[in-house]
Amino acid sequence: MAYPGYGGGFGNFSNQMQMGQPVPGTGPAVLPGGYPACPAYPDSYSSAGDPMWTYFTAVADQDGEVDAEELQKCLTQSGISGTFSPFSLETCRIMIAMLDRDYTGKMGFNEYKELWAALNAWKQNFITVDKDGSGTVEHHELKQAIAAMGYRLSPQTLTAIVKRYSKNGRIFFDDYVACCVKLRALTDFFRRRDHLQQGVVSFIYDDFLQGTMAI
Amino acid sequence: MAYPGYGGGFGNFSNQMQMGQPVPGTGPAVLPGGYPACPAYPDSYSSAGDPMWTYFTAVADQDGEVDAEELQKCLTQSGISGTFSPFSLETCRIMIAMLDRDYTGKMGFNEYKELWAALNAWKQNFITVDKDGSGTVEHHELKQAIAAMGYRLSPQTLTAIVKRYSKNGRIFFDDYVACCVKLRALTDFFRRRDHLQQGVVSFIYDDFLQGTMAI
Repeated sequence: MAYPGYGGGFGNFSNQMQMGQPVPGTGPAVLPGGYPACPAYPDSYSSAGDPMWTYFTAVADQDGEVDAEELQKCLTQSGISGTFSPFSLETCRIMIAMLDRDYTGKMGFNEYKELWAALNAWKQNFITVDKDGSGTVEHHELKQAIAAMGYRLSPQTLTAIVKRYSKNGRIFFDDYVACCVKLRALTDFFRRRDHLQQGVVSFIYDDFLQGTMAI
Repeated sequence: MAYPGYGGGFGNFSNQMQMGQPVPGTGPAVLPGGYPACPAYPDSYSSAGDPMWTYFTAVADQDGEVDAEELQKCLTQSGISGTFSPFSLETCRIMIAMLDRDYTGKMGFNEYKELWAALNAWKQNFITVDKDGSGTVEHHELKQAIAAMGYRLSPQTLTAIVKRYSKNGRIFFDDYVACCVKLRALTDFFRRRDHLQQGVVSFIYDDFLQGTMAI
C-alpha cells in the first residue's frame, strides 16, 4: 500500500513511529496503526465544583444530555474557544455525531468530557501550528497539523481536505476543529469495521451511509 | 440483503419500482438500483439572456468558476430558496464537493446547471412533503421525501439521518437540502467504486477518507 496510513502499518509500532510520529507536545500520542489517541479522562474524576459540570448541567435536558444547540451554548459559555470565534452549530452537530454511538443525536456528560479532552489537544495543536498567532492556518500548516495528529494520508487526500475546510486560502479555528472531528469520526467508524486491521473494509451501501451521513 | 437499497436489487427494475417508486411529480426518476436520477440539462441549452448565467458570471472568478462563498452569493441572488432562508455556507461547500470530481474546491457553469436542476427537484419534493406549508418538515416527512427520491434505507439509517438534520424535531429547508446533497454525493462516490454493482464496496482507508471528508 502506497500510503501506510491507518492500515498498512498496523501492529508495526516502530514503523508507525518512524512515519507518523507526532511533533512532541502538539498532539495526542500515536497508537499502533497511526491512529491518534485521545487523552483519557482520569477515572478518579469528580464533577463536584468543576466548571465543566456546571456549564453542562445548566443546559442539559432532563435526561442529562445535550443536543447540538445546547452543546454550542455549553462550549461557548465554557470559553474553550478562547479568542477564536465560538463553534458553529454545524461543527457542534458533527461533534455530537462523533461520539453518538447509539445514534440518539445527543451527548451525555461522559462523552462531553471525552470531547473536551479532544478539543484541548486539537486547540493546542492549532496554536502550535499557527506560528504567527493570526488565528488562521495556511494549507501547508493544516497538513502539518494532520500529520502531527498521527494521520498519514496521500497528498491527494490532504489536498482535498484542506480545500474543503479553507476560506480564501486560510483555515479558521472552527473549520480546523470541524476537520479534526470528521477525521476522527470517520476513522473511528472505519476502524470499527476493520476487524482484521488491514486498512481495507467492505461496506454494504446502507451501513456506509449510516456511518457517514451523520458526520 | 435485508435492505435492497442501492445494491441488492440492482438490475431488477420491476422490483425497484415496486420498492422504491417515487411519488409522481415529487422527485426525480428512479434508476435501476434505486438511485435517484437528476434531470439532465438539455443539450440545446443557450446561456444568452439566461438569468442563471448572469448571476453566475457576475460572481465567478477569472477561471469561470465559483468557490463556496461565491456560490452562496450566486444562489441567494438567483432567489432559488424562495421564501426559505438562503443556503448556509456549509451547505454550499458540500454542494461544491458533490460535483467536484477533480477536487479543485470550485464549480464551473456546467456543474452549476447540474446543481440547479437537482435543487429544483429537491425543492419541489420539499414543498410536496411540507403539506401545511410551514417551511419545515417533520421526521416522518423527511423519511417520506427520501423514499420518494428513490433511496431505500434501513429504519436505523433513516433515523440517524433525520436526527442529524433536525432542529428541535423539525427539518428546515437548508438542512433538508444539505441532507439531499450528502445523500447524493455519498451515493455517487459509493456507486463509482461499486464496479460489480452489487451494493458492496471494499475501501482502503485513504480512499474512504478522500471520498467522505469533503462531503
